[in-house]
Amino acid sequence: MRRVFSTQAIQTAIEKSLPDFEKVAGSSAVRTQESVRRQFARDESHFISPPPAVVLEPTNVEQVSKFMKICNDRGIPVVPFGTGTGLEGGSMSTLGGVCISTQQIIGEPQLREQDFVCSVKPSTTRIALNDAIKHSGLFFPVDPGADASVCGMVATSASGTNAIRYGTMKENVINLEVVLADGTILDTKGKGRCPRFAPFQLRFTKTCRKSSAGFNFTELFVGSEGTLGVITQATVKVHPRPQFFSAAVCAFSSVHQAASTVVEILQWSIPVARIELLDTVQVQASNAYSNLSLREAPTLFIEFHGSSEKEVADQTAAVEDICKSHEALDFDSGASPDKMANLWKARHNAYYAALALRKGARGFTTDVCVPISKLADVISETRADLDEHEILGTVVGHVGDGNFHVILPTIEEDKTEHRKIQSFSDRLVRRALAADGTCTGEHGIGLGKRKYLREELGENTIRLMHTVKKALDPKNILNPGKVLPEL
Amino acid sequence: MRRVFSTQAIQTAIEKSLPDFEKVAGSSAVRTQESVRRQFARDESHFISPPPAVVLEPTNVEQVSKFMKICNDRGIPVVPFGTGTGLEGGSMSTLGGVCISTQQIIGEPQLREQDFVCSVKPSTTRIALNDAIKHSGLFFPVDPGADASVCGMVATSASGTNAIRYGTMKENVINLEVVLADGTILDTKGKGRCPRFAPFQLRFTKTCRKSSAGFNFTELFVGSEGTLGVITQATVKVHPRPQFFSAAVCAFSSVHQAASTVVEILQWSIPVARIELLDTVQVQASNAYSNLSLREAPTLFIEFHGSSEKEVADQTAAVEDICKSHEALDFDSGASPDKMANLWKARHNAYYAALALRKGARGFTTDVCVPISKLADVISETRADLDEHEILGTVVGHVGDGNFHVILPTIEEDKTEHRKIQSFSDRLVRRALAADGTCTGEHGIGLGKRKYLREELGENTIRLMHTVKKALDPKNILNPGKVLPEL
Repeated sequence: MRRVFSTQAIQTAIEKSLPDFEKVAGSSAVRTQESVRRQFARDESHFISPPPAVVLEPTNVEQVSKFMKICNDRGIPVVPFGTGTGLEGGSMSTLGGVCISTQQIIGEPQLREQDFVCSVKPSTTRIALNDAIKHSGLFFPVDPGADASVCGMVATSASGTNAIRYGTMKENVINLEVVLADGTILDTKGKGRCPRFAPFQLRFTKTCRKSSAGFNFTELFVGSEGTLGVITQATVKVHPRPQFFSAAVCAFSSVHQAASTVVEILQWSIPVARIELLDTVQVQASNAYSNLSLREAPTLFIEFHGSSEKEVADQTAAVEDICKSHEALDFDSGASPDKMANLWKARHNAYYAALALRKGARGFTTDVCVPISKLADVISETRADLDEHEILGTVVGHVGDGNFHVILPTIEEDKTEHRKIQSFSDRLVRRALAADGTCTGEHGIGLGKRKYLREELGENTIRLMHTVKKALDPKNILNPGKVLPEL
Repeated sequence: MRRVFSTQAIQTAIEKSLPDFEKVAGSSAVRTQESVRRQFARDESHFISPPPAVVLEPTNVEQVSKFMKICNDRGIPVVPFGTGTGLEGGSMSTLGGVCISTQQIIGEPQLREQDFVCSVKPSTTRIALNDAIKHSGLFFPVDPGADASVCGMVATSASGTNAIRYGTMKENVINLEVVLADGTILDTKGKGRCPRFAPFQLRFTKTCRKSSAGFNFTELFVGSEGTLGVITQATVKVHPRPQFFSAAVCAFSSVHQAASTVVEILQWSIPVARIELLDTVQVQASNAYSNLSLREAPTLFIEFHGSSEKEVADQTAAVEDICKSHEALDFDSGASPDKMANLWKARHNAYYAALALRKGARGFTTDVCVPISKLADVISETRADLDEHEILGTVVGHVGDGNFHVILPTIEEDKTEHRKIQSFSDRLVRRALAADGTCTGEHGIGLGKRKYLREELGENTIRLMHTVKKALDPKNILNPGKVLPEL
């Protein structure tokens, strides 16, 4: 099914199509200025790509549909682009082609409080969503750190610090409006008829939290990274904001002890809301960047949610016992709300803290996930690998899911270093695969992980991916060259 | 893509294939005796179908693969069959054809305790799974009532009483071994290499609880009801068994009050483990069948799970307050473990209790799910509809999910009554759809709900279902005539 695109042919087809694009959405929605196009040539990864030949800025789903139809008819590759916070080059326009920026598709989040669901347009980021529904006492828990758009988080199957308690995007999306390669618009779980939102001209989607009706297309589009369709609306679960919080910080003598503690906390079924590991180098980086004074040792940041003070106190006490049985160096759970907010801000800024270890560096981030039982070993081996090869890198992780990252501040121009880091990354992925893990827990495949996918999923599953891709996008115009390895 | 099967052509193709089937798995695995075939001609629904022309009983995935290859080459329809506990005719051999019974594919459940996952073969039912892992302190929570096979529960996207706390099958399946129409064997999330289980000749599957690698095929097969592949192994999440339980029974003056109570409990974010509604007629039926003496009024059965006595006591007290603010007639939370077990047994036997209301009756069961905000209204209207049309029926429901059933004991031969019940069922589904609900919360589409699917999902989503079906099963041999409405 592989289709070879000629850059020249793409360029010609696009030039011919510009007037048609303008007819769809006006000339202001068709951006060919180099300065604009360059903004869509990078995400937060280390990948470098040419800019798209044109950036289209539709303001509604019908325009997306018309743009797709034109591109499909003429074999023009299309790369959907959200907030550009991706970490695997998934929204790079590697072939030039058309970039559809979804950020002008705006609309207030439509909250249905009693049903604990909210529908958002592509322009809504997770922080904007949470701001918009704050008054209701509800919140959207999936939190990858970056202020990504919710629809973009659907596309990459994002998760983050809260996933251990509230699940990843997969568990929190209940309906999607998607535009297919040929311009077809559909709602994966059907379109509702509730007239309430009609004045807002929102395509209202069904909001059942449970259904066995038809194929599970919602989940098929979650994590499809723009290769199967463009997501133009997401209906997600929102949760009652916990009434009581508490946090603890605990340092350990080794990453192995810290990771073993996590396994035991899970075994005791203590419903921690977040449990994050920072290794010694990351703690040093965060101390410097976020002005903290944490002990320089492998450290767990833990958060507890509950509906009473007693409940969170009980959880905290139980976790303290487990930490101490794993030779915790200290256990600090007395943080004030302000101090707590600071700690989590520091955790969210871990990436930037790691980059600040080295002037002028960009981040190269890895993202493996392994079965919990293998976590302590795999993290220890990874730390040893970094030390042995004298690579500057920090280990941080959503360890309750078995998911961890190594953040490597690198100098882009240094090819030797890049190769060294790439070799480390290969070893890390192979270590995770050997432990029956995955090459990506939450960042997606994009460009960076394609080479591992066959090894991870097996030839037959890769073939099935191509079968489905070919059925949905026969001309292979949607984000070509991403996710799927060559057949 | 519709393919018209000729019964005669199928019969001829099967007769010619019998020696080939025998070559694959021996003559004892190829069952043509009428008495055997008749056992595979019914599930627990009201649907009546001819028996399959032959029942194949493979003992391993390789045999399933070879059987599929033969059938695919010769255009023979194949219906996978598990425990036969389906409620929508999904495993009926409506065209005769081949029935693949998966119940001889046996193997001990492979528990990986520290990872909270367990892999099971098709012969393992949910009760057998729970028995096998009891020693570990872990349990598999999805509980549809019937002792279905876990792989069958994957196929229908089952859920049940615990879903409100632990999720449905979709949230609890992490990897599937599937045989496609052409005999291809694959693991949706890849095949592991951990040598530990090699001696058991188990295809060991990856057990990461989180992954963004490749398309979410696991969820695509969940709920595909045998139309996309035959599920030959499922790796599911298992959960720590709660250390403390408590239960409450609460009667209300109306179903509306009972349902409103549920909405408020959810809004307060009280993590109830189960919350089940029985309407007055069901309470009467269960009193008689299960020898209880519950007050004859709409009643909620509620279960609490926690890691301390205090925790469940707090949950119980909070729920009691809410119940009382909704004019509860009584609130009984003092049940002994024995009495509690009896109550839940009665809940599980609700179906049989309803049937016992009428001698010689079979059950016609409905299964709609609506947004929580519409639940009280839709249940009230449904009860009124039953009363107005003088139809004997009970309402029971997993109301925390917005999912409820009406159980209608019917006399199969009475065509007039059947039409009356069918009209009621149509009205119920349309009422649910008008409330932005679904025609099935957990039983699946099978034969019975195909006619509603287009209305629910919309033409474009139905077309996408056909596109995917055609890509995976181009000859339409896998469970033809089920799930997908005609194009």
